[in-house]
Amino acid sequence: MNGAQALIKTLADAGVEVCFSNPGTSEMHFVAALDHEPRLRAVLTLFEGVASGAADGYARMAGKPAATLLHLGCGLGNGLANLHNARKGRVPLLNIVGDHATYHVRYDAQLQSDIETVARNVSSWVRTSASTAELCDDAVQALAATMGPPGQVATLILPADVSWSEGGVPAALPPRAPAPAAAADDAVLDAIAQAVRSGAPTALLLGGRALREPSLRAAARIAAQCGVKLFAEVFPTRIERGAGLPPVERIAYLAEFAAVQLQGLRHLILVDAKAPVSFFAYPGKASNLVPEGCEVHTLARFDQDAEASLAQLVQRLGATDAPPALQAPQRPGLPRGKLTAEKVCKAIGAMLPERAIVVDEAQTSGVLLAAFTRGAPRHDVLTLTGGAIGQGLPAAVGAAIACPDRPVLALCGDGSAMYTIQALWTMARERLDVIAVVFNNRSYAILNVELQRVGAQGSGEKARSQLDLDRPGLDFVQMGQGLGVPAVRATTAEEFVAALEHALRTRGPHLIEAPVPSVFSGLKLRLLPRLLASLGSLPPSVARAIKRKVAP
Amino acid sequence: MNGAQALIKTLADAGVEVCFSNPGTSEMHFVAALDHEPRLRAVLTLFEGVASGAADGYARMAGKPAATLLHLGCGLGNGLANLHNARKGRVPLLNIVGDHATYHVRYDAQLQSDIETVARNVSSWVRTSASTAELCDDAVQALAATMGPPGQVATLILPADVSWSEGGVPAALPPRAPAPAAAADDAVLDAIAQAVRSGAPTALLLGGRALREPSLRAAARIAAQCGVKLFAEVFPTRIERGAGLPPVERIAYLAEFAAVQLQGLRHLILVDAKAPVSFFAYPGKASNLVPEGCEVHTLARFDQDAEASLAQLVQRLGATDAPPALQAPQRPGLPRGKLTAEKVCKAIGAMLPERAIVVDEAQTSGVLLAAFTRGAPRHDVLTLTGGAIGQGLPAAVGAAIACPDRPVLALCGDGSAMYTIQALWTMARERLDVIAVVFNNRSYAILNVELQRVGAQGSGEKARSQLDLDRPGLDFVQMGQGLGVPAVRATTAEEFVAALEHALRTRGPHLIEAPVPSVFSGLKLRLLPRLLASLGSLPPSVARAIKRKVAP
Repeated sequence: MNGAQALIKTLADAGVEVCFSNPGTSEMHFVAALDHEPRLRAVLTLFEGVASGAADGYARMAGKPAATLLHLGCGLGNGLANLHNARKGRVPLLNIVGDHATYHVRYDAQLQSDIETVARNVSSWVRTSASTAELCDDAVQALAATMGPPGQVATLILPADVSWSEGGVPAALPPRAPAPAAAADDAVLDAIAQAVRSGAPTALLLGGRALREPSLRAAARIAAQCGVKLFAEVFPTRIERGAGLPPVERIAYLAEFAAVQLQGLRHLILVDAKAPVSFFAYPGKASNLVPEGCEVHTLARFDQDAEASLAQLVQRLGATDAPPALQAPQRPGLPRGKLTAEKVCKAIGAMLPERAIVVDEAQTSGVLLAAFTRGAPRHDVLTLTGGAIGQGLPAAVGAAIACPDRPVLALCGDGSAMYTIQALWTMARERLDVIAVVFNNRSYAILNVELQRVGAQGSGEKARSQLDLDRPGLDFVQMGQGLGVPAVRATTAEEFVAALEHALRTRGPHLIEAPVPSVFSGLKLRLLPRLLASLGSLPPSVARAIKRKVAP
Repeated sequence: MNGAQALIKTLADAGVEVCFSNPGTSEMHFVAALDHEPRLRAVLTLFEGVASGAADGYARMAGKPAATLLHLGCGLGNGLANLHNARKGRVPLLNIVGDHATYHVRYDAQLQSDIETVARNVSSWVRTSASTAELCDDAVQALAATMGPPGQVATLILPADVSWSEGGVPAALPPRAPAPAAAADDAVLDAIAQAVRSGAPTALLLGGRALREPSLRAAARIAAQCGVKLFAEVFPTRIERGAGLPPVERIAYLAEFAAVQLQGLRHLILVDAKAPVSFFAYPGKASNLVPEGCEVHTLARFDQDAEASLAQLVQRLGATDAPPALQAPQRPGLPRGKLTAEKVCKAIGAMLPERAIVVDEAQTSGVLLAAFTRGAPRHDVLTLTGGAIGQGLPAAVGAAIACPDRPVLALCGDGSAMYTIQALWTMARERLDVIAVVFNNRSYAILNVELQRVGAQGSGEKARSQLDLDRPGLDFVQMGQGLGVPAVRATTAEEFVAALEHALRTRGPHLIEAPVPSVFSGLKLRLLPRLLASLGSLPPSVARAIKRKVAP
């Protein structure tokens, strides 16, 4: 048995079911070995960023790592942006990166580069396997590292001769599961319980695994019993929401709004979440969004068990029988008339099927999505944890492979869709039930906002040309079809509804291009809060605060 | 004047004319400052790998660096593969990578990562600018680093507050040009002259800048006078060739053929080139392609002046008046009938216009290109220096911007085109005279060859599915049109000729999809030499050697 064959058996034995690949010559023995192991599915991608983003989306839904198969340092480089998103989302993921044969490295051939250095930025575990005999033990250690807690990216570099040599010894994961993450200790629980009982304005900030149903219910019991607010981190790895689940308000992307949400808090209790910070820095504005005078407590660190910690806090606060507030079923009506981003979100709110997975990378056009889907049937939302756009379509590939019985909606802007548009081909090849909705507002609309927010002066036509995606406009219908995905353009709300209906009842991937005006087009930034408030898209606490200020 | 404004003035003063960009929020002040500096052209790309590949192609033709503008570590990560190609090609290139404001870094916001680590693998110069006052001096040092010699990639990391703060001080490049690279010293020249005069089989291996006309002529004089062979490195950064120039045989990609080319040599003289090594390692085969008993000499290291060194060797050998053998004008006839990769190459050979720039990333389908274009009007060929595919279309963007009066042909396979297909949009936006020819053989054909070459056993349907790009096939006509480039599919040689004629006489970009069978389809590897020999595609020395062996 050669190294590659033993490695693949080891992966399959450990429960790895999928490998998202873009191989080259140095990976050919791994590729050949695939035919010996029916338990490992190999999913080809046309670009490594699709492979890494798919592995991220897969693990968010499957709760266990997929492997990627990448070609030396350059292949890994192409995957970095989505590996960054996985790292920031604390997602388990195993990269297998082929390298030159160990004895070939010293010749510095064309594709030679320092793979470990490329890997380091995104991986908390990096190793170049030194021999065929050790390879499978390395793989087992890498897999253990991926599972953390917290979930992590591990990169196993596989020299070609380690892969092709005989003497591979499949290894097994240690019989014990990873050590269960500790829950918060008594002193922490005491301090937090005291803060909650103090009556001072207090909020729980939920992130990571604390946005799944059991934790949401526990947090909602605490809210019901003690009157604390519940917030979700700005970009959740995976949040369960919809009718029948406790609703949680997400911290806003715009620091101006987040400040309103958090205003007046005296205690902020982190549950598998970081203290909120501004996504970017802006001249003269604070980076740290924790209001002055607010004490930050940590109920569960990333390496601790959020669910168990919340359960203990529920007990400590006597909230075991407090009835959590649950979101009532509620759908907007179907939109009509000329298509806008708002109407697309409204249609999705009206039509979202049961148990959908929504991958949300529509930075500006999707601003109303949360409001319109609040009371839709329960669903999961995956978001841009690391801020590296180009995650939406690949993550949808992975989510659909993890959950073949659930419909997946991927919402992208025209700008973000173009980073990893190659994902569409893998959707077509694997016949995945993904509906890709591309909001085409012919611009990097978010940057038009940011250009104002950073206070950059004196910009003119050249600057605008860096933000606009017209001249020429992008035709996603042709691109989708060129990549094998049935695609249509909807120019009215009625057309969009019909296209979504068709896509929902027809298996396989679909793309719907929605040409829409930018939600911020022609907008002066100072008007933004009023606009959003009028649209009902703001987080409820922000909307209330603004209404108090601006309503007549 | 803020940092960004001063930086852009510094770049323009230093002769940087183009910035290939994909900016985000942290780069907004740089973007705004573009409108203050008419000398710097900003070229937007939809993906960072297009920006880095375009900067590479630009510098190969312009002989000076362009800048890229990239968004934090993830943007740089997306650009890594083509930066690797630039590094391996010793191409000058300046990355400007925006970062969070210095004071924001400690909050570890979503996009935070260790940019210097990401940069290190491809950059010989990396610095995070620490203050607005120092920024322009940093930029000047970065630019000096790019010019080497040899050419290098430098990465200047620009924190947002360093960019937006007042107090920028434009700086000038030092008045002296970079120290001229030293030519070979007397002892080296003596030893090499002695080797050449020995009468033992000797070859010059030309790379880097030694593949431009003055060096080629000098090398050809030596060949004419002393009977040495001339070889070019396997993947030249830029080679000048065609009618009227000395022809040079490229070392073959397949080590089996390279071994034949180099067989029997006793002296190999490197001129701005590395000693030849196998592109990949193969079980049981040598990595080092220098034949046993062959002495390797270095006439010009990467940091030395190849042209001056060759000129001195010409003198030393008394070859000043030896007439260099020049390639005679010679064109194949126009092809007819069902389209094949051979006929596409033949048509290009028949129709290549004066002073064309050919970007060659057609790994298998382009195997006959060199043979058919040997006697075409003189042209430049840019190749895949680092082996990281996805370079062809972006490099064509850069070459067309560097040389707006020259036609550019970009030849890609279906596999390689898909890594950076977004480049087509920039061609359309900038109205570049690029003709993209996509050989669509519905596979990673090179990998079908490599799977046999590495001796991987037992591969079956799953392995093949990792190499084939059918199910679904890629429609490059639709993708091209979707990205704004007029595109046609040619299924016969006559259609291809007509499409190429039309593209050559119509300004702006064009895409021609050429559905062709893989040149290796159904081929047993052991038959490959005979097949290629029969097609006349082999390097002449290999073809002669094979004919001696296999001809009846």
